Amino acid sequence: MKIKLKAKNCLYPMPVVLVGALVKGQPNYFTATHVGILGFNTLAVSMSKGHQTGLGIHENKTFSVNLPSVDLVCEVDLCGMVSGRHADKARLFETFYGDLKTAPMVQQCPLCMECRLVQTLDYPRHEVFIGEIAATHGDPKVMPNGVVDYARVNPLLFVMEDKGYWQLGPRLATAWAAGKVVKHKLA
Amino acid sequence: MKIKLKAKNCLYPMPVVLVGALVKGQPNYFTATHVGILGFNTLAVSMSKGHQTGLGIHENKTFSVNLPSVDLVCEVDLCGMVSGRHADKARLFETFYGDLKTAPMVQQCPLCMECRLVQTLDYPRHEVFIGEIAATHGDPKVMPNGVVDYARVNPLLFVMEDKGYWQLGPRLATAWAAGKVVKHKLA
Repeated sequence: MKIKLKAKNCLYPMPVVLVGALVKGQPNYFTATHVGILGFNTLAVSMSKGHQTGLGIHENKTFSVNLPSVDLVCEVDLCGMVSGRHADKARLFETFYGDLKTAPMVQQCPLCMECRLVQTLDYPRHEVFIGEIAATHGDPKVMPNGVVDYARVNPLLFVMEDKGYWQLGPRLATAWAAGKVVKHKLA
Repeated sequence: MKIKLKAKNCLYPMPVVLVGALVKGQPNYFTATHVGILGFNTLAVSMSKGHQTGLGIHENKTFSVNLPSVDLVCEVDLCGMVSGRHADKARLFETFYGDLKTAPMVQQCPLCMECRLVQTLDYPRHEVFIGEIAATHGDPKVMPNGVVDYARVNPLLFVMEDKGYWQLGPRLATAWAAGKVVKHKLA
């Protein structure tokens, strides 16, 4: 049995990211949880209009998406509370650059993607930046044998319902394999 | 220090969903992990062209997004392995309908959203369906006091790198609050 609720977005948890952009030549970071994968090489980050980071993305047509570990929860939360108009949020991190040169990335984050802006979806109050990943930069500590181990990444997850940051739990099963166990149900 | 990798999408974990659609009048379900939040009331699901569920979304301009708990991992995985052309995947679940009438939802999933198709992004091999949430249906068992508790939802998460289904871990901190602890770093 189900209870009908108002139209509530319950597509959570979402990975929390720091979106990086150059704003008038200075690196700025914004905490985003309205994110998504649109294709193997394409992602989306959404934010209200007028954010400094959004202005920087329009300016340079590049941005970065950085995955923090849980140990950065306070700094990440602060980047969602304070505007780059009033504070230099880049002071919280060490910034580095990759191939695109104009997409500042966070050295403290174990996984960083630099992206080219390929499309912007315009909504009345917010906009969605669609990025094509140009290169990914990973901390060797989270890549034993060259494969990213998300238990080591220890990503920060977000749930809107309780305004909560959550942690990743254990690995359960393997995709394109677990389903074989119940294949007889379709016979 | 970072190692530069090829352009690898590392925006994981993502919540695993069953996307539901009517295909020639019959409910069909497809497992999607290329998903995202585009706005408070808007979400995106992406899939390769030609999937039965995608054809059904084009046909009816409606679809559902259902969040399974971890106990459905085998059935969910199977819905990503087998095409609706060759099997009646709706046999794995009990289907119900809401306001839109043409967006089949999964009774066994604790959270279900019925969506109106508002835009389709066309890529060479895949397409992104953008949906506006019309109504959300929740199992009372995951909503003590009317608030969704994601520990009770026990959602299924996906990581492409290890083709792994993962579980949600513990709640860590509260957003728009945790950041206060490090506010002095910007002073």
